[in-house]
Amino acid sequence: MDIATLSIGQFSFVQNAFSFGFAVMAAATLFFWLMKSEVAPEYRLAVVITGLVTAVAGYHYFQIMTSWVSAADTSTGVVVATGVPFNQAYRYVDWLLTVPLLLIELILVMRLSRSETIKKSTMLGGAAALMIILGYPGEVSQTGGLRFVFWVLSMIPFVYIVYQLVVGLKSSIESQPESVKNLVNIAIYLVIGSWLFYPIVYLFPLVGLTGGAAITAVEIGYTIADIVAKAVFGVFIFVIALRKSKLINEKSETAPATENV
Amino acid sequence: MDIATLSIGQFSFVQNAFSFGFAVMAAATLFFWLMKSEVAPEYRLAVVITGLVTAVAGYHYFQIMTSWVSAADTSTGVVVATGVPFNQAYRYVDWLLTVPLLLIELILVMRLSRSETIKKSTMLGGAAALMIILGYPGEVSQTGGLRFVFWVLSMIPFVYIVYQLVVGLKSSIESQPESVKNLVNIAIYLVIGSWLFYPIVYLFPLVGLTGGAAITAVEIGYTIADIVAKAVFGVFIFVIALRKSKLINEKSETAPATENV
Repeated sequence: MDIATLSIGQFSFVQNAFSFGFAVMAAATLFFWLMKSEVAPEYRLAVVITGLVTAVAGYHYFQIMTSWVSAADTSTGVVVATGVPFNQAYRYVDWLLTVPLLLIELILVMRLSRSETIKKSTMLGGAAALMIILGYPGEVSQTGGLRFVFWVLSMIPFVYIVYQLVVGLKSSIESQPESVKNLVNIAIYLVIGSWLFYPIVYLFPLVGLTGGAAITAVEIGYTIADIVAKAVFGVFIFVIALRKSKLINEKSETAPATENV
Repeated sequence: MDIATLSIGQFSFVQNAFSFGFAVMAAATLFFWLMKSEVAPEYRLAVVITGLVTAVAGYHYFQIMTSWVSAADTSTGVVVATGVPFNQAYRYVDWLLTVPLLLIELILVMRLSRSETIKKSTMLGGAAALMIILGYPGEVSQTGGLRFVFWVLSMIPFVYIVYQLVVGLKSSIESQPESVKNLVNIAIYLVIGSWLFYPIVYLFPLVGLTGGAAITAVEIGYTIADIVAKAVFGVFIFVIALRKSKLINEKSETAPATENV
């Protein structure tokens, strides 16, 4: 990636997007953790993990922003590379931790049986980690051939996870209460929808998209996809947890918790 | 250690691993402390200490990462030593505090009698501190002979601890409830398994493994071993505490806490 191909406008647009990414992730984290005690004890694990995902992502957006700023000198009115490389790999470090966790938060909020929870968490979380690990060598490789090989390898667990989300969790959705069935469905399609962005962007350098506009599109796109897959997705998980908590409260005939969500 | 023997790829891979180590430790800490109130009061001490171990480790990973970055200049496209030495000794400072604590967290979650808890914590914690203290002079020594002498000295408490974990805690495992017996066993073998890495790596410089690939292997290996011995181990301690809390709740016929873990 040649950072000097960016205009000043593009460079600062990306910088602002990273700052926005950090602010969203940090705010989402505080929201989930501050509201933790408002859901029933059964759902607190899911809500805590939802906040962990955004916390880890927030840390990485801060690091990415710092790395971006140190990669260029803009004091002359144009973008001049300082020589310090922009560390794109922070994204992989982030995903290695957050992607398995966000699949686990979805499984936890569904409250399946203990054996199913452990089985699905292990399989989906493991496949997600494998997907990220297989993407990394291609991302840092200098040749298009290697990039393509690791894209193909990484797509195997990717397709497996999407298949499991669409088909494997289908019967489990049927067992969810009516008031959250639709939300669980939306949460699943949010994951799948936002994820489709990553393998497409990964191929950009292979088809010659490498200039300032392409770099800007990739970084903005990653940021939007991360916000949707972690913070927006997390809000759905939280609302599902809150509604299911309310059902528990109604059953036990005590006063309902927060009602207006 | 000559940092200039590393390629740019190796240098940034290690840097990313340190950042990953920090993120994992920080996330694990927040997780344990946020979930503290979800376990029975009897187990909160174990869970708080579990988070202390990862908090201290997180601090040290941040320091190690900072030291690593300041040891090299990568702005010319190759790794050039700045002359500031990479402070490997942060690891010993970390272990001196975290290794006794992580043995104590294991003893605490087993809830032995008060006298046994104090006796085992003192002996295992003391042996662990002695093991780290004896390793340090060898790590900073410039001669292979001294390194080997302190390796042998440090292995005495090491072997004692492993023996105590395998044999000394065996009878105590028998008294654990059925639903956690297996988890306690796994936790013990996680400690032993991850610990085996340290004495092997310590000998690397003695057998001539000192180039870029060896440095990379050592730092990545230490990071993985630390994550397993502290964060992954901590999750097992937490799940043991959660399951045992549930048993207490069931006995007192109140509503069960989180069930699906």
